[in-house]
Amino acid sequence: MKEIGVGIVGFGTVGAGVVEGLLKEASLITRRCGVSIALRGIADLDIKTPRGVDVPPGLLTTDALALAAREDVDVVVELIGGTGIAYTVIKQALEAGKAVVTANKKLLAEKGEELFALARLHGVDLYFGASVGGGIPIIRSLRDGLVANEIHAVYGILNGTCNYILTRMSREGSDFEAVLADAQRLGYAEANPSLDIDGFDTAHKICILASLAYGVSIPLEEIAVQGIRGLNPVDVRYADELGYVIKLLAVCKACGNKRLEVRVNPTLVPKTHMLASVSDVFNAVLVNGSMTGDTLYYGKGAGRAATASAVISDIASVARHRVSGAPRAMEPLPAIATTDYALQRPEDCISRFYVRLMVREACGMVGRFATLLGNHGVSIFAASQHEATDAQCAAGYVPVVILTQPARTGDLVAALTEITEQGIVQSMPLFMCML
Amino acid sequence: MKEIGVGIVGFGTVGAGVVEGLLKEASLITRRCGVSIALRGIADLDIKTPRGVDVPPGLLTTDALALAAREDVDVVVELIGGTGIAYTVIKQALEAGKAVVTANKKLLAEKGEELFALARLHGVDLYFGASVGGGIPIIRSLRDGLVANEIHAVYGILNGTCNYILTRMSREGSDFEAVLADAQRLGYAEANPSLDIDGFDTAHKICILASLAYGVSIPLEEIAVQGIRGLNPVDVRYADELGYVIKLLAVCKACGNKRLEVRVNPTLVPKTHMLASVSDVFNAVLVNGSMTGDTLYYGKGAGRAATASAVISDIASVARHRVSGAPRAMEPLPAIATTDYALQRPEDCISRFYVRLMVREACGMVGRFATLLGNHGVSIFAASQHEATDAQCAAGYVPVVILTQPARTGDLVAALTEITEQGIVQSMPLFMCML
Repeated sequence: MKEIGVGIVGFGTVGAGVVEGLLKEASLITRRCGVSIALRGIADLDIKTPRGVDVPPGLLTTDALALAAREDVDVVVELIGGTGIAYTVIKQALEAGKAVVTANKKLLAEKGEELFALARLHGVDLYFGASVGGGIPIIRSLRDGLVANEIHAVYGILNGTCNYILTRMSREGSDFEAVLADAQRLGYAEANPSLDIDGFDTAHKICILASLAYGVSIPLEEIAVQGIRGLNPVDVRYADELGYVIKLLAVCKACGNKRLEVRVNPTLVPKTHMLASVSDVFNAVLVNGSMTGDTLYYGKGAGRAATASAVISDIASVARHRVSGAPRAMEPLPAIATTDYALQRPEDCISRFYVRLMVREACGMVGRFATLLGNHGVSIFAASQHEATDAQCAAGYVPVVILTQPARTGDLVAALTEITEQGIVQSMPLFMCML
Repeated sequence: MKEIGVGIVGFGTVGAGVVEGLLKEASLITRRCGVSIALRGIADLDIKTPRGVDVPPGLLTTDALALAAREDVDVVVELIGGTGIAYTVIKQALEAGKAVVTANKKLLAEKGEELFALARLHGVDLYFGASVGGGIPIIRSLRDGLVANEIHAVYGILNGTCNYILTRMSREGSDFEAVLADAQRLGYAEANPSLDIDGFDTAHKICILASLAYGVSIPLEEIAVQGIRGLNPVDVRYADELGYVIKLLAVCKACGNKRLEVRVNPTLVPKTHMLASVSDVFNAVLVNGSMTGDTLYYGKGAGRAATASAVISDIASVARHRVSGAPRAMEPLPAIATTDYALQRPEDCISRFYVRLMVREACGMVGRFATLLGNHGVSIFAASQHEATDAQCAAGYVPVVILTQPARTGDLVAALTEITEQGIVQSMPLFMCML
């Protein structure tokens, strides 16, 4: 039985899960993959705090670079996070001809091109299966399972915190702030929740999926990102009445003419759609391929054991490659500018829309806004006027919800701006994409 | 760029899809997997009938064995089906040191042990990703993505014909026979539909998934298989009223003491469950792993393009292994008796149950059967008496539906048998498992 040496750098939540999994399931992993995976060491600045794992003596060290450089370490597993020491560890490991496994979305987003080029240059693996979707083998499925498919679109529910908040708002009719506070209390949301609820975590992940699906490198700052902060429960309720649930959806879609639409925003999903059934902290990715049609991958997107499962799966793959004599698998690294897609401009993206307007209560107002929408090329698919609250009555406005036919975002915004300027509505109407 | 030669044996629906995909997406596949896949030939007894694919001249042959034996064919793709010539082609290819890709469930079920041993002996790949779940990369996910997970359970909707029929019965309240006839007319069911609707196709597939998940070889004839033939629409309706849908579910579950429960039968699935949203011809597999918890894989389980996608994905994988210098990937072949699981006896399987009884209309009857169930250790979770039809009234029986707490199958059967023998019900009650 051949043996592959592994060094774990970063002994936090996921690191501890990986160590536990490697030790506990050693014989299972060996039986399944034909390689024995030997844990050579674990590096962390803090090697005193117990992590709930029995670590064999002598494995812990505070010197990450020395561990990663050891002769008997073939695979370096980077679980520190961030772009500081993590970057240095990975760079030195790749340059020394070692395979690297990481779950570091941020580093991949910022330094991915450089690191993948380095891996290619040195003929070694750089795997990152745990960076998107936690325990769901979505990276692997895109890389290998759908290799013969042109990818038409990828839709993802990629952030467990947001999905948990949305699920509870939908079930209970609660306010965003109240559910967020509860989620923080329960440990489902960070004290500073911005990365999650403002959509940036989701954006990092869709950029990684886009790079795999389309062979493009997409700068995070160029895509349109909208989170769920301050989502109004009235929209959750109106959506429900119309047969939809609101999900924070990441979209990456080929829209012809070598244009890619990449965006993150709250989106109405029909209740009959598989993605609508994805509740609580679960994640899911729907991929529409040219041969498979829709396939969907669902599971826990975060958490110690689920993420560790993905890391160990990567370790097993690169270990198999190394013992098979091929230091780098002949597998697609995320292609770096191998294709010539350009980003679709946000105003050119086409979608059906949910629009909520506070329409001035006066004869002919509904007719006027409908006409204005039509003038801008936006057709109404469904419309409903809702009972006004006392305060709304007093102010002289009534809530109206419309669902549009597919329309250009820029056209919708132009129409809504004109409607607002003409005083037909109280303020700029709220709108959301529909799946 | 290295080149790998492929010979396709069997130019039916899937074969034509594979040829089309390989020709059409050649540059995409090469870019993604770093290997050029060269189609050397296509063998079929019928090389005259057009398949809707432009085949370059000189590729077609009627001599399958000669094609598979060619020096420049590195990978043999068997898409004939059955256990005759398909077996000979695969055997000779493996013995000649070629990699083999097949979608042949039946052959794997009957001769899998022998063929996998042969592949192991000759150090070559034998891939079968298209044998379960069509375009869904479930085999790959179980093999690689969940490598660190002990598998607690696998639940699958694995037959598109059955799921189509069940979806329509549920939506329309239609009779089984009427929907089957319609499905046959539309091409969703075979003229002889037994393999599908009696559950055998599903059983073949769950045996393959069980072999991957648990390292056991399960003889098809030893597992309990019940299809959907003759499913009564009244049960579909009662299930709906109780918040469930009926799915033909394949189950493979570790139930402690090294026992495996493997079965195929119509099962009530709660409407809030992801598997309940799997409609029409779609398939899905839910895997509960020790580290990931639940993960689910969804997509088209059959059809030319989806199945061809899985075949090409396998071709790409074995091609990469060959150019990397490792003729056989260090990947788990389905383990052959590498573990010591035994099948749980059907009567020892524990489940919640749906039971429909025609209870004699007389004082105390409901009390009597409830008591008898209790005497056999079966607890009632919910019960409802339904309005009797005129015919039922005339006969003196009323329909009653109960849902049980988890119970031993043998205990339930014993209780129902006694209830029947005592004349409390018109005939042996119908029962179904619940998820």
